[in-house]
Amino acid sequence: MSHGASAAAGLYAPGMPAAATSRVSTALLTDQYEFTMLEAALADGSADRPCVFEVFARRLPHGRRYGVVAGTARLLDALADFRFDDGTLARLEPFLARRTVEYLASWRFDGHIDGYREGELYFPGSPVLSVRGSFASAVVLETLALSILNHDCAIASAAARMASAAGDRPLIEMGSRRTHEEAAVAAARAAYLAGFTSTSNLEAGRRYGIPTGGTAAHAFTLLHDTEADAFRAQIAALGTGTTLLVDTYDITQGIRTAIEVAGTALGAIRIDSGDLGPLARAAREELDGLGASATRIVLSGDLDEYAIAALRAEPVDMYGVGTSLVTGSGAPTAGMVYKLVEVDGRPVAKRSENKASHGGAKSALRRYRASGTATEEVVYLQAQGPDRREETDVELAVPLVRDGAVLPGLPNLEQSRQHLRRALVSLPWEGLGLSQGDPAIPTVMPPVR
Amino acid sequence: MSHGASAAAGLYAPGMPAAATSRVSTALLTDQYEFTMLEAALADGSADRPCVFEVFARRLPHGRRYGVVAGTARLLDALADFRFDDGTLARLEPFLARRTVEYLASWRFDGHIDGYREGELYFPGSPVLSVRGSFASAVVLETLALSILNHDCAIASAAARMASAAGDRPLIEMGSRRTHEEAAVAAARAAYLAGFTSTSNLEAGRRYGIPTGGTAAHAFTLLHDTEADAFRAQIAALGTGTTLLVDTYDITQGIRTAIEVAGTALGAIRIDSGDLGPLARAAREELDGLGASATRIVLSGDLDEYAIAALRAEPVDMYGVGTSLVTGSGAPTAGMVYKLVEVDGRPVAKRSENKASHGGAKSALRRYRASGTATEEVVYLQAQGPDRREETDVELAVPLVRDGAVLPGLPNLEQSRQHLRRALVSLPWEGLGLSQGDPAIPTVMPPVR
Repeated sequence: MSHGASAAAGLYAPGMPAAATSRVSTALLTDQYEFTMLEAALADGSADRPCVFEVFARRLPHGRRYGVVAGTARLLDALADFRFDDGTLARLEPFLARRTVEYLASWRFDGHIDGYREGELYFPGSPVLSVRGSFASAVVLETLALSILNHDCAIASAAARMASAAGDRPLIEMGSRRTHEEAAVAAARAAYLAGFTSTSNLEAGRRYGIPTGGTAAHAFTLLHDTEADAFRAQIAALGTGTTLLVDTYDITQGIRTAIEVAGTALGAIRIDSGDLGPLARAAREELDGLGASATRIVLSGDLDEYAIAALRAEPVDMYGVGTSLVTGSGAPTAGMVYKLVEVDGRPVAKRSENKASHGGAKSALRRYRASGTATEEVVYLQAQGPDRREETDVELAVPLVRDGAVLPGLPNLEQSRQHLRRALVSLPWEGLGLSQGDPAIPTVMPPVR
Repeated sequence: MSHGASAAAGLYAPGMPAAATSRVSTALLTDQYEFTMLEAALADGSADRPCVFEVFARRLPHGRRYGVVAGTARLLDALADFRFDDGTLARLEPFLARRTVEYLASWRFDGHIDGYREGELYFPGSPVLSVRGSFASAVVLETLALSILNHDCAIASAAARMASAAGDRPLIEMGSRRTHEEAAVAAARAAYLAGFTSTSNLEAGRRYGIPTGGTAAHAFTLLHDTEADAFRAQIAALGTGTTLLVDTYDITQGIRTAIEVAGTALGAIRIDSGDLGPLARAAREELDGLGASATRIVLSGDLDEYAIAALRAEPVDMYGVGTSLVTGSGAPTAGMVYKLVEVDGRPVAKRSENKASHGGAKSALRRYRASGTATEEVVYLQAQGPDRREETDVELAVPLVRDGAVLPGLPNLEQSRQHLRRALVSLPWEGLGLSQGDPAIPTVMPPVR
């Protein structure tokens, strides 16, 4: 495995071995136009021009207050597998000239990448990723970079709101069944990054070292002649610390049966349907009445950040979240774009009616009050620097790739998770609310030219 | 490659070789609870009980009138790779007993699968997939089956509405950058199945034989000193039949430059921003005025089925659709569930408050008027048969897997695409509308017991 690949794999979890499977090339996870542009640029010599492409979101979805950067480590890993082997080249031959195909045979990304670290907050206009290299080097990464960042940032941004709403109560990610089978693995990772406690997805456990969990579905109860038989079988196999699903038939009776079978040391019950608030209260009373005051209550069933917040005052010990997590709770994509902003050291920008963009290679810093509260996101032209620098300003981009090689020592998933936790604390308090509104802090952009 | 795998690969496109890459095991694309249930069921002997699980959607999203089945061929392909090699087993050892791990080492799906064919319409309650086998055989397929069907059906269902709105005008799928990198490939397939003409995604071209297309982005114009330079380079490399993107600076000037450089034989122009209707009209006038009356107009930029319908009267030759396609146009998951309905030949069903389900193994037929218009979806218990059978009734499920082996001769992607086209014609006319409402035909369900 190349240096780049090992370094990227190391990002996922400290001490984990690199992925056991050697991934096939990622070079065809690409829109065709990137290669036709490359062909035309090779022909007229412009392919060698030094360029800077930037990834940013023009806006946050649905009046959200902040976004969460996620996917960078996955992107760096995929970049290490972005190569043109014979099978890949064969698929380009039908629409590319021979000399383009020959050029790609020895293509390797040899540029630099900087970006916001995973777990960092972002706002409209934040230059989340910056790719510097020849046009030929950088243009072909558009789709791969955007696919990964748009998906993972969307999930992490929704997950962080759920984690805020849940407070100290643990959150289990269990949405794999509601999204594409590979997106599910990435979603579990993004959710964990954003504060979820565990996932039901085993491949996410294998690939990223995320804690996994799960006990039983309604099918297990239905498989047995009686609910008591099912509970007995589960306790025998998984121990009394397990979670019994009590809403297959009648919840009150289900709880009674659960404690009869497991005793008062039962780990938890799960309720997956109905009006969850009143049901949690009734279940708590019943459990306490049966002497099972340490038995916890897990709720699941169409929960989103609003439902979680509404359950704050109820006796709930843990939430399982599925559909709303993997679909970004109404915003399944982060809407990020990959734009050419600099050619030959000069700023470039399109001037389309509703999509004008800011030319010039940019960096960003976050400005804070002395108290530690963030006040604004200052995006500035690298050629000019920010309007001023204050002691509490923090530069946001970190170097990720140099001369095509992923840098060693980048933060791992646990570190990124901690970073986000700290970053959220720095937001003005209204920025953590669930209601729609402006971004938690304003972005100061350089002038459009 | 096993018999099952080759047969499934053959579904994708006639005459295509099986995928060049051997996929790693899909067995960990699974929720942990499926294996803990298996362990408990092995211990008390219930794992051998003959079971039937069914996949269905309780409702269609957002007042949609119909759903489109997609993903079945992908599921059968993934099923062929659902096996427990040493690496997979190693990841199960931390939470499974040794004897469960040993059992899984020789696990192989040996049951039967029936289902609606790809490109078939479905409605609330339609038994889209039916898995028959021992509990041990069928329970572990839940996540894989639902992930694939929930994603692909969601995309195909949205795509079919866009194709209806576009009428005879071609639709290009270009949403890869807005969704997970592997979901993008599946989305391109689902879109093609549902009537899209081509995709920008090269891996979808490689894997499924879907026509691919793409020419240039704004970056290519910005890379050059002038728009004319960029157009000249593109024409030189791709020929005058190419599509020039004319909205980087000023659209009117862009069109003028395009025809100056390419001549009146220019294939097409693309407009990606602004108020697309008026812009298309102005562009058509200008092109005609320049003598380029055969040059086509491609529109893209935040199109969805409603925007496409609103452009019906405008001089548009082709649509490019991205974000709204890959996010299911507001419904990114089909909401299908995988439910145990029969054990030992007896119907089972949970009686939860808001999620009651219909016990018993079911089949379905679609009832038609003599004119060929569908009138209802009749879901019936296999043990009972439908209330009656009429000459025009059509059984909806087809056998897909027998004794664990994918059946040969299943419809390929082109055939499924044609099937959907015919199925849509059979809907009552109001069922093809975009407005919210009831399902196009009612589903008659067997009584809940």
